[in-house]
Amino acid sequence: MKFTFLGTSAGTPTTARNVTALALQHGGPKGWYLVDCGEGTQHQLLRTRYSMLQLRAILITHVHGDHTFGLPGLLSSASMAGRTEPLPLIAPAPVRAFVETALAACDSTLSYPIEFIDVEQDSFEWRDDYLQVERVPLSHRVPCYGYVFTERNLERSLLSDKLKADGILAGPVWGKLQQGQDVVLENGTELKSDAYTAVNRQPRRLIVAGDNDTPELLRDACAGAQVLIHEATYTQAVSDRVGPAPQHSSAAQVAAFAESAQLPALILTHFSARYQYHQGNTLISEIADEARQYYNGHLNLADDFAEFELHKDLTLTRPGRNGQP
Amino acid sequence: MKFTFLGTSAGTPTTARNVTALALQHGGPKGWYLVDCGEGTQHQLLRTRYSMLQLRAILITHVHGDHTFGLPGLLSSASMAGRTEPLPLIAPAPVRAFVETALAACDSTLSYPIEFIDVEQDSFEWRDDYLQVERVPLSHRVPCYGYVFTERNLERSLLSDKLKADGILAGPVWGKLQQGQDVVLENGTELKSDAYTAVNRQPRRLIVAGDNDTPELLRDACAGAQVLIHEATYTQAVSDRVGPAPQHSSAAQVAAFAESAQLPALILTHFSARYQYHQGNTLISEIADEARQYYNGHLNLADDFAEFELHKDLTLTRPGRNGQP
Repeated sequence: MKFTFLGTSAGTPTTARNVTALALQHGGPKGWYLVDCGEGTQHQLLRTRYSMLQLRAILITHVHGDHTFGLPGLLSSASMAGRTEPLPLIAPAPVRAFVETALAACDSTLSYPIEFIDVEQDSFEWRDDYLQVERVPLSHRVPCYGYVFTERNLERSLLSDKLKADGILAGPVWGKLQQGQDVVLENGTELKSDAYTAVNRQPRRLIVAGDNDTPELLRDACAGAQVLIHEATYTQAVSDRVGPAPQHSSAAQVAAFAESAQLPALILTHFSARYQYHQGNTLISEIADEARQYYNGHLNLADDFAEFELHKDLTLTRPGRNGQP
Repeated sequence: MKFTFLGTSAGTPTTARNVTALALQHGGPKGWYLVDCGEGTQHQLLRTRYSMLQLRAILITHVHGDHTFGLPGLLSSASMAGRTEPLPLIAPAPVRAFVETALAACDSTLSYPIEFIDVEQDSFEWRDDYLQVERVPLSHRVPCYGYVFTERNLERSLLSDKLKADGILAGPVWGKLQQGQDVVLENGTELKSDAYTAVNRQPRRLIVAGDNDTPELLRDACAGAQVLIHEATYTQAVSDRVGPAPQHSSAAQVAAFAESAQLPALILTHFSARYQYHQGNTLISEIADEARQYYNGHLNLADDFAEFELHKDLTLTRPGRNGQP
């Protein structure tokens, strides 16, 4: 499970950071998911390995433009690239109106269907062969969500002693059971995969939160999660100056929450444009310094094109950059 | 009169060229106009001297996304930058629906009003203190326009012999007449500026055409113009292969037209993504080579951030690049 930050600036792009988007790769060598799509996301993708033909779904945390204005262009370019596969677009309902009006007004006809899925519907659930996605309602100026990605269909090991004891001979049946399929033998006996296989590790779980001024809302979701990606738009001092409107979190707020939830790893992103650079700038280091005062886990600050890998042993590494900004 | 190309790729961005936009600077040191606004235009502007607070008007040639999808983000960022001045947005009517829906669906409230002006209305005309703008209907898959920019209020020289002969004494009255103002004297005599001043040069005139498969439509507008900026999406051979649908021009078509219209200068832009680079690539040179076969005037191929200056003596120079791509 790898992921690449495509934009890490709040509100407006800067020369160092684009507005929000994240590519999450999981299941097979090329399939991936896009979380949020600020303007210029398709431009960022040109500098990475991610292909619009392999995109499995887009998930939008909330309607604000710095998370959505890249959609019409990205969807159109996927069409020009020849995509035919339907594309699930999971988002609050107004995103549908925005996308449909943009494409209609601008005379764009797509070569593939978009499957709009309203994340705000009561019965929301989404999964494919690789991932289970849940939503967590957050607190922001508009309805906003965090997405919890949990891997599905983990590899199974065969309980060969039990298979032999029950007289099931090694062969294609073993292979199907190992792949998680239940099998009905010629004599009518049904063999449950769960009864003859074991999953030997915990599923990887990653949370990508949208804009949010109340990290506490993520407490239940954080149980069993290894990584939380959360905005830290300001330091606490700036946040206090900006005022009491429900909007964003400070580094201190998120870090204190992550510590109390015993989260193994926290990645901060969505920095106000006043924090321009990750390196060589005292300002962005204020975010990091503040977070470290409250959080003792594995802390990272995201950069555009920074890539992370969450391994099967649940450790997180930052192998480097994907793309040349 | 200076102008900077902010995007020179057709349809989709590439790593070398963004989609279409052009900044035209005229009248005062900082005021400027934006023609078309593909996705990522605000990102390009971050690398130039142009400020969203000094933008006098936006003009859109047609509704296609590679000329419009940057509008919601750019308009929102102008608001976050604190603009309060009303902003004229001259465009085909569907652009208004696109912009209004985008801003409403995405919960953006602007700090300034947009003055939507429908370029397709019968009585279209637009001018400010510096420029007169006319439209030329072109031929494309959707209604599309070229914009003719003619400078206004050229500097005047006083006809001092005539002023003296008519007994008008040097003083503030002379100054007003020179600024183009008519003056009523205390004794009731009206002095017309036109009668006592002369304009000693021809106005600069620049045409920025939208997508167009019939350059001939620009013939009348080209009378008195020094520069035509026109798409040359393909070479003729590629254009023939792409097929007969009314869409775009080849380099040969535009160049032959410019030659027959005796245009002093032609700048080609809006290149298909197959022509990636201006330098060090044989493909883009095919566009230039083809155009030179048909056109003997001052030929240029646009690059992102290429800057040109149209001088008062009507010569065109390319002083360099504005911005660091």
